[in-house]
Amino acid sequence: MEFSELIRTGRAQAKLLRGPEAPPLRGTLCVTGHHLLLSPGPQATSDLWLLLLRRVDSIEKRVSGDSGTITLRCKDLRVLQLDIEGVAATLDIARSIEALSSLESVITSFPFFYCPKGSATRNNCGPSWPFSALARPIRGARAAQAPPPPDSDPAPLSIRSLANLGRVPGRSGPWSLVRSSSTLDPPKVYSSGPFPLRLHPTQARALRLVLLRSSQPLTGPQKRRCAENEELLRAVRAGFRPGARGFVLDTRSAQAAKQARVTGGGTEAKAAYPGWKRRHRPLERGWPLQESFVRLVEACGDLEQSTDHWLSQLEACHWLAHVKEALSTACLAAQGVGREGACVLVHGAEGTDSTLLVTSLAQLILDPSSRTRAGFQELVEREWIQAGHPFQLRCAHSAFSHARPKHEAPTFLLFLDCVWQLGRQFPLSLESGEGLLLALFEHTYASPFGTFLCSNEKERCLCEVRTRTHSLWSGLNQPKEQRKLRNSLYVPNPLAIWPSVELQTLRLWQGLFLRWISLPEPSEVAWEKVWQIVTDKKTEGCEPTVSASEPQL
Amino acid sequence: MEFSELIRTGRAQAKLLRGPEAPPLRGTLCVTGHHLLLSPGPQATSDLWLLLLRRVDSIEKRVSGDSGTITLRCKDLRVLQLDIEGVAATLDIARSIEALSSLESVITSFPFFYCPKGSATRNNCGPSWPFSALARPIRGARAAQAPPPPDSDPAPLSIRSLANLGRVPGRSGPWSLVRSSSTLDPPKVYSSGPFPLRLHPTQARALRLVLLRSSQPLTGPQKRRCAENEELLRAVRAGFRPGARGFVLDTRSAQAAKQARVTGGGTEAKAAYPGWKRRHRPLERGWPLQESFVRLVEACGDLEQSTDHWLSQLEACHWLAHVKEALSTACLAAQGVGREGACVLVHGAEGTDSTLLVTSLAQLILDPSSRTRAGFQELVEREWIQAGHPFQLRCAHSAFSHARPKHEAPTFLLFLDCVWQLGRQFPLSLESGEGLLLALFEHTYASPFGTFLCSNEKERCLCEVRTRTHSLWSGLNQPKEQRKLRNSLYVPNPLAIWPSVELQTLRLWQGLFLRWISLPEPSEVAWEKVWQIVTDKKTEGCEPTVSASEPQL
Repeated sequence: MEFSELIRTGRAQAKLLRGPEAPPLRGTLCVTGHHLLLSPGPQATSDLWLLLLRRVDSIEKRVSGDSGTITLRCKDLRVLQLDIEGVAATLDIARSIEALSSLESVITSFPFFYCPKGSATRNNCGPSWPFSALARPIRGARAAQAPPPPDSDPAPLSIRSLANLGRVPGRSGPWSLVRSSSTLDPPKVYSSGPFPLRLHPTQARALRLVLLRSSQPLTGPQKRRCAENEELLRAVRAGFRPGARGFVLDTRSAQAAKQARVTGGGTEAKAAYPGWKRRHRPLERGWPLQESFVRLVEACGDLEQSTDHWLSQLEACHWLAHVKEALSTACLAAQGVGREGACVLVHGAEGTDSTLLVTSLAQLILDPSSRTRAGFQELVEREWIQAGHPFQLRCAHSAFSHARPKHEAPTFLLFLDCVWQLGRQFPLSLESGEGLLLALFEHTYASPFGTFLCSNEKERCLCEVRTRTHSLWSGLNQPKEQRKLRNSLYVPNPLAIWPSVELQTLRLWQGLFLRWISLPEPSEVAWEKVWQIVTDKKTEGCEPTVSASEPQL
Repeated sequence: MEFSELIRTGRAQAKLLRGPEAPPLRGTLCVTGHHLLLSPGPQATSDLWLLLLRRVDSIEKRVSGDSGTITLRCKDLRVLQLDIEGVAATLDIARSIEALSSLESVITSFPFFYCPKGSATRNNCGPSWPFSALARPIRGARAAQAPPPPDSDPAPLSIRSLANLGRVPGRSGPWSLVRSSSTLDPPKVYSSGPFPLRLHPTQARALRLVLLRSSQPLTGPQKRRCAENEELLRAVRAGFRPGARGFVLDTRSAQAAKQARVTGGGTEAKAAYPGWKRRHRPLERGWPLQESFVRLVEACGDLEQSTDHWLSQLEACHWLAHVKEALSTACLAAQGVGREGACVLVHGAEGTDSTLLVTSLAQLILDPSSRTRAGFQELVEREWIQAGHPFQLRCAHSAFSHARPKHEAPTFLLFLDCVWQLGRQFPLSLESGEGLLLALFEHTYASPFGTFLCSNEKERCLCEVRTRTHSLWSGLNQPKEQRKLRNSLYVPNPLAIWPSVELQTLRLWQGLFLRWISLPEPSEVAWEKVWQIVTDKKTEGCEPTVSASEPQL
């Protein structure tokens, strides 16, 4: 297929309205294979305006007289209006956008054609994938020196390597560095392997902590058992710290976990896993989560109409309730690991949605190194991308699409919102600022980079994503970008950060949900000013003291 | 009456619980005429604890076995629990507190006995009343040199002085300094006179602004007219700027204003006041406002029980809706004065509640000098205390009292909340920090100072408040206090600050309503740290630049 077949018109004269604050833009509108362009003409002062077509979530066209209007609702929640001269041109452009924005093919998508300024050609961009080896499974201790080739299927983690967690000879300092995202075939029970937390040296010395994630055990209606997995969990407890307790944190309700047996899933039987206790903390996923997102965006868009019932409308969307549940479940996991010294295994059904939400947030709470810029990028790469969160399915459409969602769910957005809440409550402790979180939200739904393409490692290898596209991280790590994305107040905090999860302390993430609707809050602007002062001060050489006294709720 | 008649017991052993965070305190409990004291004994490390009895809003006693428990709910929303040895002692102490905390006599209240450390004796504390001459009426221009004695009744402002507003010969620089709180007897219409805004010189040069306040016109069922008042309003418009429009902003609904005729009040008839347009912006007052306050405090106290419906509970209290209405009405008045160059007259019924709320907030929005420390104290003194807000009636009880409120209403608290919202939205523009607002809230309900005693100037003169008690302002202006009360980020901002009044930008004032319930937010603590850095920077000599770029919504 050629893109030219889908482009029904060359160009048209148009006026672009970009919201209440930006001035309208006039010029020649043009549809290309991946972009919508507006060229303001040679004498204009403004630059070329362009929109990645994949960013369009829904399109609405109206014609009246000899002109037409196209309303584009984007996946980053922006609403654009194009007033176009000519009815035929309007309809042709609308059909072209419709066809090109909904292409499902991965290898014809823009990341496969994009080459950032100053980078190597796209056939030679290997070095721009800094985390490509993160999830390679390690077989025992020796494997650290010889990782398997990246295109092979992840292999199971051996019991021996588990029993040796924290005592791997090749480790750097007292940190445990064994990681895995191994996939066991059914009927073997755990399809994603365990990984230990990377801890601050002093903490690691005093405690040995382990947080594991997996998919559900495939017990099925016959209540099958799997000796290898029972041995695996026994070895984790015994090998890691004799007498340590184990908790299985199931992100489904007890009933849902039971019902999963009908389709071959299930839960850990008490008798089969002595020393492990099961706790159920149901987290919403799939359609209800997507619906909550859609309703919240609707409520935010309605703001100008009626604001008298804003608070109850906000409550009715349940979004903040989901944030609260996610954060409090993550706190529970972190508490088990960090305060009770237990081994905690988190899973739901597939282990690629709410499981990742809980384990990644728990790491942010406990592990100071995951709160640095590099650590946070590594966390997203390891805990979401390489752990197999199906971005291609979950982020196919955003909140405006009329298509009834099948697999869509804003699980990763919920994670970003929780991180934003953490950052708001501990403004000194996260190196990544709100800018980075907003950028990640945008790039998960439509991006010129290949980082969030495909739904798992297998698909990414098949499409040769790592050799044929550029990595978002190298784009974001440019010094110019870093100034916008970094939290200038950041001071490394060696302590765990326990967030308050009460609804009265959680806030709507206005920077995202009201980003295109209302001006940023004046206080946000003032924050910027304060940060500037602090940055100036830092460059003057008087580093602020470490905020070890930040309160522990 | 002697206090000793009301004190039924000398002393008792007790344990004091002061909330989840403060450690319990054990010692000898003692009731005095104005205080409850707990002396921890000679070998204890902690100091004497004492509570002003007037601070007690409600008292609850329970006895079991040979001991009792008294729960004291204070007017500053704190809840204290006293576990007392001995049933008789418990009952006696409870009865003593009950009697002493509800004394209505002003001249036996604590301010008449209090002498702050380092101050002159209480018979010689004249200099501690810095604003005592603020509201003295000025008759024409000459009066500036010879103000009438303070104990005389305020006299009406002459038409001549009004027509000369802004051109008073004795004024300092281009500012207009004519002020008045004159009271005309019925059937003369306006019972509180007009006052001009004090404006920044550059603004005053370009614009001549006038914001007036009064009580309702006393038209009554006979639709009486008052030639003097009609002439007065005509003169304001004509004398101030020829062709200027006039707006009467009535803080009652059109219907309520009409109904007020039955009891002798009413509104301005269109025909009688040519050039003046009437706008109704009903603001809640009295019992509904008090109920909203009580419900909000109840909801905050219930937080530990159920938080799932926090947002709709918060909405059901309507407190934030009242904040929104107050701020948006103030914006309307400020807009008329500052942007449309109109003369704006604000009144409701008596002109001592919602009228003051609107005019004082409008001044904060428009007038940079009212946002300084001294300017804000002067604003409170002029627009609330000397304008006749009946503090004694409105703040007799707070949110916990079981007494059915008669005249209670948290109008001044609503004002403080609105100022807090302004400060949150413009964190650089107000010199008074949250600490000062919290102090004012506490002192309006119970104070060792005389500033908020009595309900009007007449009562204050009668009780000789200004010669026999100390002023709160001199207490708060101690350098030691200032460090706690001042906003260290303050940079004079010569612009008007237009707040966003949408419900999604307003916040619950957690620092007040959740002060004794939950820990301060970690972000607040971080703010403190940032402020510390900024203060250090300031003292180093690099003053931050004036925030003239703070956005104007």
